[in-house]
Amino acid sequence: MTAGFSGRIAGLRASLEREGLGGYVVSEKANVLYFTGFPYGGRLLIPRGGGESRLYVHGVNYELARRTVEGCGVELVEWGEKVDQRVAEEIRQLGFRRVGFDVLDVSVYLRFSRILRSVKLKPFRRLVEALRAVKDETELECLRRSAELTSEGMKTAFEMIKPGVHEFEVAAEVEYAMRRRGSEGVAFDTIVASGVRSAFPHCECTDKKVSKGDLVVVDLGARFRHYRADLTRTVVVGKPSVKQARIYEVVREAQDKASRRLKAGARACDVDAAAREFIAEEGYGEFFVHSVGHGVGLEVHEPPSLNPENKEQLKAGNVVTVEPGIYVPDFGGVRIEDTVLVLGGEAERLTEALYGFEV
Amino acid sequence: MTAGFSGRIAGLRASLEREGLGGYVVSEKANVLYFTGFPYGGRLLIPRGGGESRLYVHGVNYELARRTVEGCGVELVEWGEKVDQRVAEEIRQLGFRRVGFDVLDVSVYLRFSRILRSVKLKPFRRLVEALRAVKDETELECLRRSAELTSEGMKTAFEMIKPGVHEFEVAAEVEYAMRRRGSEGVAFDTIVASGVRSAFPHCECTDKKVSKGDLVVVDLGARFRHYRADLTRTVVVGKPSVKQARIYEVVREAQDKASRRLKAGARACDVDAAAREFIAEEGYGEFFVHSVGHGVGLEVHEPPSLNPENKEQLKAGNVVTVEPGIYVPDFGGVRIEDTVLVLGGEAERLTEALYGFEV
Repeated sequence: MTAGFSGRIAGLRASLEREGLGGYVVSEKANVLYFTGFPYGGRLLIPRGGGESRLYVHGVNYELARRTVEGCGVELVEWGEKVDQRVAEEIRQLGFRRVGFDVLDVSVYLRFSRILRSVKLKPFRRLVEALRAVKDETELECLRRSAELTSEGMKTAFEMIKPGVHEFEVAAEVEYAMRRRGSEGVAFDTIVASGVRSAFPHCECTDKKVSKGDLVVVDLGARFRHYRADLTRTVVVGKPSVKQARIYEVVREAQDKASRRLKAGARACDVDAAAREFIAEEGYGEFFVHSVGHGVGLEVHEPPSLNPENKEQLKAGNVVTVEPGIYVPDFGGVRIEDTVLVLGGEAERLTEALYGFEV
Repeated sequence: MTAGFSGRIAGLRASLEREGLGGYVVSEKANVLYFTGFPYGGRLLIPRGGGESRLYVHGVNYELARRTVEGCGVELVEWGEKVDQRVAEEIRQLGFRRVGFDVLDVSVYLRFSRILRSVKLKPFRRLVEALRAVKDETELECLRRSAELTSEGMKTAFEMIKPGVHEFEVAAEVEYAMRRRGSEGVAFDTIVASGVRSAFPHCECTDKKVSKGDLVVVDLGARFRHYRADLTRTVVVGKPSVKQARIYEVVREAQDKASRRLKAGARACDVDAAAREFIAEEGYGEFFVHSVGHGVGLEVHEPPSLNPENKEQLKAGNVVTVEPGIYVPDFGGVRIEDTVLVLGGEAERLTEALYGFEV
């Protein structure tokens, strides 16, 4: 885990060496941010050798980039110029034969290909994904702070949820509480889903009022220096029914089982299976309709994904969610989620909230 | 301006007919939302003829999509299935020869191309862009409400800005005020940039305190039913200097000049020129570093762009920002922005805020 942007660019260069690529074009905003600290995008060209990396930006962002980006040159793209043309010309001048990239829209790819007929352009998103999946110390500091702010948000949610409160009011107070304490904004749209709406894993806050007996899923996250955290708790308003309590216990135990399996060297699919098999044994298999977790960092969903199909081994420094859920249509749903840091031994929980079920 | 999702799909089908395309693949989240009302993405296949459009989603979103999406079928993509494979097979079965799409990552495009060797896949983003650029009545209702909420946010900003307040505190209160009144979240990260930081058109809120004499740029937006608005005002804390006042007046007049040029039939570049030429005449040309405006809707930046290079004619029903700015490095910046509706005659301002300069 090295820190700093130059360490990250050096990490990519080592991958370029291994893959026989002369250079790499970065277009995804989060990847530009990862390598340069600049949050407003642009195109970044990283040559394999010792040459300077260059970030191409338009006038609207030029002064800010010029003054804040370290360890790489900043190029102004003027009116009438095409950024792709500039980057393509640079690639030609540097004489690269094979160039990797993270993502490119087809139109841009076809344009690049026309300009650079003798250059092989290869999609190599996984090179950046592999780097970003293992968080360095600087990133971990931000993630810890983001998780703290997120946990504060959940405290507010617990205080707010009572019969008669509107879903969106809970969200408003949660977001305000996090923002006042230094969150830069939400990690994703806050979910407050009550009653039968809790059976939709993704759904929006509405002006529905929370009623006695409702299951309420609260899924929220803060952002600190662009790093996100992700935390879900489910409560029942008043006394839970036998079925509600049973589902809650199964999800709780499933989260424990997955968390215990989560360590460096474990396969992602096996962590997923730990929760999935237990939920199936308990008779709710058909109602667990998503993966058990996903990486979190500059984006709220990023590699590694903890799903049944991902056979890759987890690494120390991965930061992922562990979030089994059971969603019974027309009844309600329960999800319990934390953001955790993968280590050689037991994983470290970064988010912290009560497992209280009754409010 | 027809309303409803079926009208939008019919609009696309007319374009497919014109372009000789058998069908169209929609991948961009905002476009899926536009055609189906479903906000969580997926891939949407729209055949040219009378056949049903189909939205392919994973299990996590299936129940919600099945219950809320009207006018198109919803298909479940199970574990172990690849959505692209499913869509490609459907295209083959339907016997399309030429298929358009909005955006595709190169990797997906190459995969599609391998599966569909006898099918021509063509990037045709502009077909959806052309539809989305002209807002229908349903959209205008949402945009008006979003603009109202945004205007309420600016009122709060005016109340909050005083010496000693932190930039992020202003943002927190603004966002809270909008959220409490029904905003679903921010249209984009709120900007509160004070002092020399106001010279960066895009920049983050920090914990910097606002001081007497600071220029403060406040750029904010609410969201209502996924529609965004965008509003900027610049104030000076206390008595403005001669230079501050002069820059403010030039920007104010530039906004007026651009707004007066803004009507159906005008070329986008001419609206930009109205502001740009005036600012240049007044001696600040080098400090106006972005386009004069952009479309707003489901995304905060969408077509049409009002920039020096865009020669297209504006249409009644376009909703755009008008936002000239002057940014003097190491001194400060002024931007004044409203979201407006293009009409046959004078454009209608949707956002409303004081032009007060001194607070």
